[in-house]
Amino acid sequence: MKTVLVVIPAQSGHRAKLEAAGEGCTFLYASPGTVTAEQVAGADVIIGNVPAALIKASPRLGLLQLNSAGADDYIKPGILAPKTILANATGAYGKAVSEHALALTLMLIKKLHLYRDEQRKANWADEGRVGSIADSVVAVVGLGDIGLRYARMAKALGAYTIGVKRRAGACPEGVDELYADDGLDKVLVRADIIASFLPGNGATTHLYNEARFKIMKPSAIFINCGRGGAVDSEALYKALSTGGIASAGLDVTELEPLPPESPLWSLKNLVITPHVSGGFHLPETFERIVDIAAENLSAYLQGRELKNIVDFETGYRKCFF
Amino acid sequence: MKTVLVVIPAQSGHRAKLEAAGEGCTFLYASPGTVTAEQVAGADVIIGNVPAALIKASPRLGLLQLNSAGADDYIKPGILAPKTILANATGAYGKAVSEHALALTLMLIKKLHLYRDEQRKANWADEGRVGSIADSVVAVVGLGDIGLRYARMAKALGAYTIGVKRRAGACPEGVDELYADDGLDKVLVRADIIASFLPGNGATTHLYNEARFKIMKPSAIFINCGRGGAVDSEALYKALSTGGIASAGLDVTELEPLPPESPLWSLKNLVITPHVSGGFHLPETFERIVDIAAENLSAYLQGRELKNIVDFETGYRKCFF
Repeated sequence: MKTVLVVIPAQSGHRAKLEAAGEGCTFLYASPGTVTAEQVAGADVIIGNVPAALIKASPRLGLLQLNSAGADDYIKPGILAPKTILANATGAYGKAVSEHALALTLMLIKKLHLYRDEQRKANWADEGRVGSIADSVVAVVGLGDIGLRYARMAKALGAYTIGVKRRAGACPEGVDELYADDGLDKVLVRADIIASFLPGNGATTHLYNEARFKIMKPSAIFINCGRGGAVDSEALYKALSTGGIASAGLDVTELEPLPPESPLWSLKNLVITPHVSGGFHLPETFERIVDIAAENLSAYLQGRELKNIVDFETGYRKCFF
Repeated sequence: MKTVLVVIPAQSGHRAKLEAAGEGCTFLYASPGTVTAEQVAGADVIIGNVPAALIKASPRLGLLQLNSAGADDYIKPGILAPKTILANATGAYGKAVSEHALALTLMLIKKLHLYRDEQRKANWADEGRVGSIADSVVAVVGLGDIGLRYARMAKALGAYTIGVKRRAGACPEGVDELYADDGLDKVLVRADIIASFLPGNGATTHLYNEARFKIMKPSAIFINCGRGGAVDSEALYKALSTGGIASAGLDVTELEPLPPESPLWSLKNLVITPHVSGGFHLPETFERIVDIAAENLSAYLQGRELKNIVDFETGYRKCFF
């Protein structure tokens, strides 16, 4: 009899769905904060992001179904045994993260962060000219579920959209031009808005370095809702504090939580949200995670093909950037 | 020879366009702050919002072409002589104001105003659940150029849109349901987001009173980018501070500038911008104002029909709410 360890906050309806998918299995419920090394070692299947340090390449673990889209912590050598299947929750976060990124984009275009600062001082002050999303060239770097949704929303609001993904292919609907990652620099030069949704892995670390911020327009707005490691924080600080780019919005930072002493906090033209675009902040996200987990649990037990299997090279679902 | 007094900040290109439209006229350039009563009294045509108090029902004035969409100050009795034609700049502000309203909407849905407040304290704090524009019922009250553009953007992002206008007619593209103004209360009950773009006139004063805030959902987000007088500020304060509605975004207030002692400034769940959604904040807006003014000047001089003639009853363009 197989043991399924569930560390997502599943309520009764969610439990019923998972237990129906894993009929005949023993179910054990815990949370990432309370789960023990013994529970992890005794599990055949784990649903949810258990602390990676507890896994210790457990030979019994057949499937680790994450509740996140990013899998950075689990693709490192020595965490999972070779036979363990790693699946993520790509697709569950598309709506939540893409809307958050769009909200950051419009906030920065319309200078609402500056107006909020003035409001706190009861100051009715005009912050001058603004831009328009409808007149903007929007570069979307990382064109998975999240990036593609963002591109389509920007396009629906009138923007001209340019996608950049690992391997260029046919240009999807909602994207005006598509480039492979070696075309990134040419795209950055042209963009009014750069929205990045890259996973954290060796190839993306400090992709946004001093040289890349330098080729962006001084009027450019930069958004990162992928992983914080893609941005060299010092280079971003320099670009924002010297007029290299106009403003930026980060939902992710290199160190999380961002330390209180970080100079990024006090940049007027930077908006920081504490990695909340995804998570379970939009109730629908959690429902979709449970659906993915139930589907994959059933497929795993019945020997069928799973969805969202993580590519250890990119850290994301195999078919995407 | 007719005299055209221009009080908008027209640069050489704009002046050339206006002077071509008004061939044979004498052109005089000033600003709303420097223009004199003598200049106003000597003008056959005025382009731009001169202080209403200077006009004194000047019998010579044949056309007052405003640079604003709102005409509140000029429709009051005694300001304009009966024969003076009053035209506004409806159409010039659609893109700017509708995008600003959408930016406020997304900012509030995603709680970015709260995250900005925490950022100023270098605090990495989770503000909990958020909503989604795609899952929202969006009521758009006042369905002129600005409101219709806002409705279409919300619809393009997945929202269900309900329009309310003075006289209901055929439901325009991008609007799922349309009601006349007597259907307002039924719409307010159902809406997750209420975005108001009403002009300032007798019929709209304190339209959003205590009773109307009470029938809104406790989770409702209220946006006003029309005129401030449509909202009873005390009723709004009460609704926001007692959980009557979730949050609000105002680009207009009853008194402008909003006095520093107003309690509205310090409400955490209210975002205030200082009547900047329109104005000349988006460069394109000004170009469109000049186009409208040039077209109407030429039509006036040649005895053709003008566009954007203000209805003194509603304070807006005749065919719209």
